[in-house]
Amino acid sequence: MNTFGRNLRLTTFGESHGPAIGGVLDGLPAGLCIDFDEVRRQIARRRPGQSALTTARTETDIPEWLSGISPDGITLGTPIAFMTRNRDQRSKDYEAWADMWRPNHADFTYEARYGIRDHRGGGRASARETYARVVAAAIVRQWLSLRNINVEAVLCGAGEVTVDEIFDTLIHHPKLSPHLNIASSQTEAMHAAIARAKAAGDSIGGSVAVLVTGLPAGIGSPVYAKLHACLAEAMMSINAAKGFEYGLGMAAATASGIATADIFTTDSNDNVITTTNYSGGIQGGISNGMPIYFRVAFKPTPTVMQSLPTLTRDHRTVTLPASGRHDPCVALRAVPVVEAMTVLTIADALLSDTFYR
Amino acid sequence: MNTFGRNLRLTTFGESHGPAIGGVLDGLPAGLCIDFDEVRRQIARRRPGQSALTTARTETDIPEWLSGISPDGITLGTPIAFMTRNRDQRSKDYEAWADMWRPNHADFTYEARYGIRDHRGGGRASARETYARVVAAAIVRQWLSLRNINVEAVLCGAGEVTVDEIFDTLIHHPKLSPHLNIASSQTEAMHAAIARAKAAGDSIGGSVAVLVTGLPAGIGSPVYAKLHACLAEAMMSINAAKGFEYGLGMAAATASGIATADIFTTDSNDNVITTTNYSGGIQGGISNGMPIYFRVAFKPTPTVMQSLPTLTRDHRTVTLPASGRHDPCVALRAVPVVEAMTVLTIADALLSDTFYR
Amino acid sequence: MNTFGRNLRLTTFGESHGPAIGGVLDGLPAGLCIDFDEVRRQIARRRPGQSALTTARTETDIPEWLSGISPDGITLGTPIAFMTRNRDQRSKDYEAWADMWRPNHADFTYEARYGIRDHRGGGRASARETYARVVAAAIVRQWLSLRNINVEAVLCGAGEVTVDEIFDTLIHHPKLSPHLNIASSQTEAMHAAIARAKAAGDSIGGSVAVLVTGLPAGIGSPVYAKLHACLAEAMMSINAAKGFEYGLGMAAATASGIATADIFTTDSNDNVITTTNYSGGIQGGISNGMPIYFRVAFKPTPTVMQSLPTLTRDHRTVTLPASGRHDPCVALRAVPVVEAMTVLTIADALLSDTFYR
Amino acid sequence: MNTFGRNLRLTTFGESHGPAIGGVLDGLPAGLCIDFDEVRRQIARRRPGQSALTTARTETDIPEWLSGISPDGITLGTPIAFMTRNRDQRSKDYEAWADMWRPNHADFTYEARYGIRDHRGGGRASARETYARVVAAAIVRQWLSLRNINVEAVLCGAGEVTVDEIFDTLIHHPKLSPHLNIASSQTEAMHAAIARAKAAGDSIGGSVAVLVTGLPAGIGSPVYAKLHACLAEAMMSINAAKGFEYGLGMAAATASGIATADIFTTDSNDNVITTTNYSGGIQGGISNGMPIYFRVAFKPTPTVMQSLPTLTRDHRTVTLPASGRHDPCVALRAVPVVEAMTVLTIADALLSDTFYR
Repeated sequence: MNTFGRNLRLTTFGESHGPAIGGVLDGLPAGLCIDFDEVRRQIARRRPGQSALTTARTETDIPEWLSGISPDGITLGTPIAFMTRNRDQRSKDYEAWADMWRPNHADFTYEARYGIRDHRGGGRASARETYARVVAAAIVRQWLSLRNINVEAVLCGAGEVTVDEIFDTLIHHPKLSPHLNIASSQTEAMHAAIARAKAAGDSIGGSVAVLVTGLPAGIGSPVYAKLHACLAEAMMSINAAKGFEYGLGMAAATASGIATADIFTTDSNDNVITTTNYSGGIQGGISNGMPIYFRVAFKPTPTVMQSLPTLTRDHRTVTLPASGRHDPCVALRAVPVVEAMTVLTIADALLSDTFYR
Repeated sequence: MNTFGRNLRLTTFGESHGPAIGGVLDGLPAGLCIDFDEVRRQIARRRPGQSALTTARTETDIPEWLSGISPDGITLGTPIAFMTRNRDQRSKDYEAWADMWRPNHADFTYEARYGIRDHRGGGRASARETYARVVAAAIVRQWLSLRNINVEAVLCGAGEVTVDEIFDTLIHHPKLSPHLNIASSQTEAMHAAIARAKAAGDSIGGSVAVLVTGLPAGIGSPVYAKLHACLAEAMMSINAAKGFEYGLGMAAATASGIATADIFTTDSNDNVITTTNYSGGIQGGISNGMPIYFRVAFKPTPTVMQSLPTLTRDHRTVTLPASGRHDPCVALRAVPVVEAMTVLTIADALLSDTFYR
Repeated sequence: MNTFGRNLRLTTFGESHGPAIGGVLDGLPAGLCIDFDEVRRQIARRRPGQSALTTARTETDIPEWLSGISPDGITLGTPIAFMTRNRDQRSKDYEAWADMWRPNHADFTYEARYGIRDHRGGGRASARETYARVVAAAIVRQWLSLRNINVEAVLCGAGEVTVDEIFDTLIHHPKLSPHLNIASSQTEAMHAAIARAKAAGDSIGGSVAVLVTGLPAGIGSPVYAKLHACLAEAMMSINAAKGFEYGLGMAAATASGIATADIFTTDSNDNVITTTNYSGGIQGGISNGMPIYFRVAFKPTPTVMQSLPTLTRDHRTVTLPASGRHDPCVALRAVPVVEAMTVLTIADALLSDTFYR
Repeated sequence: MNTFGRNLRLTTFGESHGPAIGGVLDGLPAGLCIDFDEVRRQIARRRPGQSALTTARTETDIPEWLSGISPDGITLGTPIAFMTRNRDQRSKDYEAWADMWRPNHADFTYEARYGIRDHRGGGRASARETYARVVAAAIVRQWLSLRNINVEAVLCGAGEVTVDEIFDTLIHHPKLSPHLNIASSQTEAMHAAIARAKAAGDSIGGSVAVLVTGLPAGIGSPVYAKLHACLAEAMMSINAAKGFEYGLGMAAATASGIATADIFTTDSNDNVITTTNYSGGIQGGISNGMPIYFRVAFKPTPTVMQSLPTLTRDHRTVTLPASGRHDPCVALRAVPVVEAMTVLTIADALLSDTFYR
């Protein structure tokens, strides 16, 4: 299943070291005039090789647009296809591993399912696939922006360093247009933690906070397509994600009902708001007009600079050599991907629900 | 959207105080001989009014089977429809609230979306809807049992009492057929915490641990229908769920890659296993044959025995009267629902994937 | 697969002689005030036992509404479930046939697919299933009526009697609000043909003409959900349908391009119209604002009052006894079902497409 | 909606004169060793410019494979993406028509739906889109061939010339492996009819006969995904299709039930067969193991070499100039497209149903 979404659908394709990576975005309304500079800025945020903290692989990663856009840059309502060639692939680096199952990777499970696996660069299981998500969302977020809906994500944890004050602020001082830059005070500490892991040849986990503002009340479907269920599915589809929580989140398990009741009131324009936001902007699976926020936890990059024992396809025990290059903290590079999947989910909810009004 | 699943689909219907609650299960293979006693046992686990800790509403809740089953109790391959009448509804209890939006409930958001709301008993947003999920899963789990796949859930946290040793055991001492009864040592403490909340007129959150054993390696779809993404979506579709984590879970964010590598080896039958199970039985979205486990956090029941300020539909501030009856810990009653959604998700993955082999 | 539609979805259930027949309609907008008298009128049109020309089975067929409707009769936006009990089933009539495969029925193929079959009254393959379609559409057509969209079907052929002038009129004298009553001049002749077949113990085929008026231009999706492709799928899902044609239809195969060009012009209100309507109101899969019309051909009822040779499940050749009761012309009873499926298809197209504007 | 299929899904993209045309095929099992020479042969059958009877546009049309295939040419189970650049586009030819709505084309309706239209070469509505269907099916048919399932289509009507004896033979002399080459006796006459239309600057309609052999009994879903309903939807999604009929087809409307009963018997291997095949190989929406056959009618190419009156976007009446080049009989070029859509539909049915066994 390589398609995401119901009325706005993204189908992606491509193996890490195959000919190309790309996607087809279907269902975006016609008439959107695309700002391609903004698209490039979004893609640049995801690009590897940007700092000492991420992989050394350098790729220009400018997508080629194949369809769905008029010569003037306006969406036609037809599917928008795009792709980028894979370059700098160093597939030979992977030859040594062709028969081995790398721990915590998808090597063994792909073989269990398909009986065959493209071992070069992780094949389809590589995070390279997320390129297509970021490209598609770079267009879709412009459609959301026209409706004053904004999506923002930041790294809010790397190893032992975590930025919990973000959530305290969002719960207790809800505004209709908050920002996540409160995390910036800890950015340096988080980057230092990543650098330490890298220096040790190890990797560390991390977490990403997301904030959606401007979404009106009434979006999302009750029961099986609850807005937060769609967000959870979207987030858990990102490589290395291990947990999702929204609003009060996992801490809800130890909370009191009276203490966490979000009391309804009105603002100066007689809009309905709540005085706190333990609910995370969603009640009963439908947006309530308050900011939506959630957190996603990512495991450490499985690839480490240390040799590990493992099995080959024919069940021989071997030593997997230490890797030459890797991202020590996948959460850092996941930030724009988390944003992208949020954008796609919110836009799909809007395009699925507005006909009900 | 009131349908769950891709190749095995459950469509549910019904409002809490409407004529009936039920569902249609489509896609279950023909030829399964249903054990109706077992179905009744499963339904009984969910039924309200079982102890002082859950709501006083008493319902027999025996489903009426409408289709899809032969006179001998064998599935025909056609849709299995079932329903139960709503009784003991006390809709009058809700009349006072007809124009009020109860805090942390879906009253306001349903109105924002639909412009109309069945206020009686929470309407479609009531946890009563989960009855249909438990009934459907009570059949489907029999189909899984024939394949030696078992699903088990337990309460693993209620308020301040949590049972983290479950997860330590599952990670560090993986066996192919573990059980969750390790939680039983704390059952009394958890129930006491719930009783305290009830006595105080308050409610508390809780969490539920789930274990799936017997699922072979190779089930689940990479990229957008990752097995854990489907599980996350399923869990977050349950009323009051606020967070989902599998394997190492949220703790992955602070972990080291080297320390959490699940090393592949073989057991005495030359089956591939891992020496630890930080991965939670899923790698790259596909099962690896090890036990799958995850945890779901639930918020406290929004209904409490204390009056709260709120708004009416026309934005007047009023006092919502204290409720007469409620479940102080929704997580307790969610246990069989969590199991049911796990059963449906795993069976759908099996029915979606096996043709690939 | 027992669900029809994308954004407006009807899931049906029930075997002919099982406990009940019914459906769940999901996705209909909230706020529609249902006229239940009109629903009953629509259901009455389909009911068997209405004349000497249709089966003698008598059923009251009043649906019980299970969910999705407020006590005042207003749609809640939640799934509308309904059912009716099966009565007057005479299952014993079918015992003799339990092991035989009736020619041109689905007995053999159900067994080939499922390995089991409910032989009583045709089980799930019975036209009784169409009851649920008519009930659901009886509500949905009220939603269409509010938008001035009307759907009308008539019998336009029974055995040798056919009413081709309907189509000539629709092509050459297009108006925005035509009617199909031109067929009425031949109704008597068609009924006489059916009566002759019945008297001979035989059955005859027939065809049904459909007209949709009031649908604005721009509805339908190009490429794979072309409006006429959705209509074709819907029509061919009706029992005994063997062919579908719209606009010029099968006759297109022998036509000239110049002679059948629908020339664009404007009416007195500057609306775009075409001077002829060979296109049948759809161009490129999207409505063009002109009346949509099409025809569906139905085979003769397979059940006849004559004994036929056939096989049993274990491949013995036997004589299938002549049937006691049957509809000699299934097309006659298909008229309201054809209307119902058209209503569902058009409403789904509207609910899928309007967000694009 | 640019995706076809349920478990085997083809998503296509591209405008006629945009950068590229292509598709993504998702759900094909892993392990198929692709014969690329055979793929090229299939594509060559569709290519324009092959004879004096089809458009002069010449394209090499060799697809570039972007993903899903191992370096050895084996399917990986991941999405297979492919594309071809558009060349020889002569977009200038279309500039004169940019503001005009060509009769019987989708110009007006695309604008009604999207408010914007790529007028160059018909944009997304061009038959050029079918290239992607033929490429995808060229792979999928190899997977069918391994199961001894074969799909064959031929032109069986062009203007006044029709080859009805094909159907008489298929009905009355059913064999398990017939061929359609009976049509070849009339090929010359059909080509002559096309040549006459071309010489006259006109176009003519045509029809295509299809035969599927080797499909076992039990494939297809009853009720809403009946095998013939899926085939009807698939056929009507092809440009210019106006009608679909299977088995007895439209002629069923005038038939007698007794005369058209397909009597069950067994062949020398004790396989269940029928002595005639009025049913067209499908009963109750499920294959019965006999050959499946159907016919699709196509309208004449709307583009003709004669000027016609029409409207501009601002409702001025103008004269549409005669076209410079066109296919006088779209049915001729539709033959491989009809085959392709049949292949995709049958394979999807197999991949959707076999888990029921």
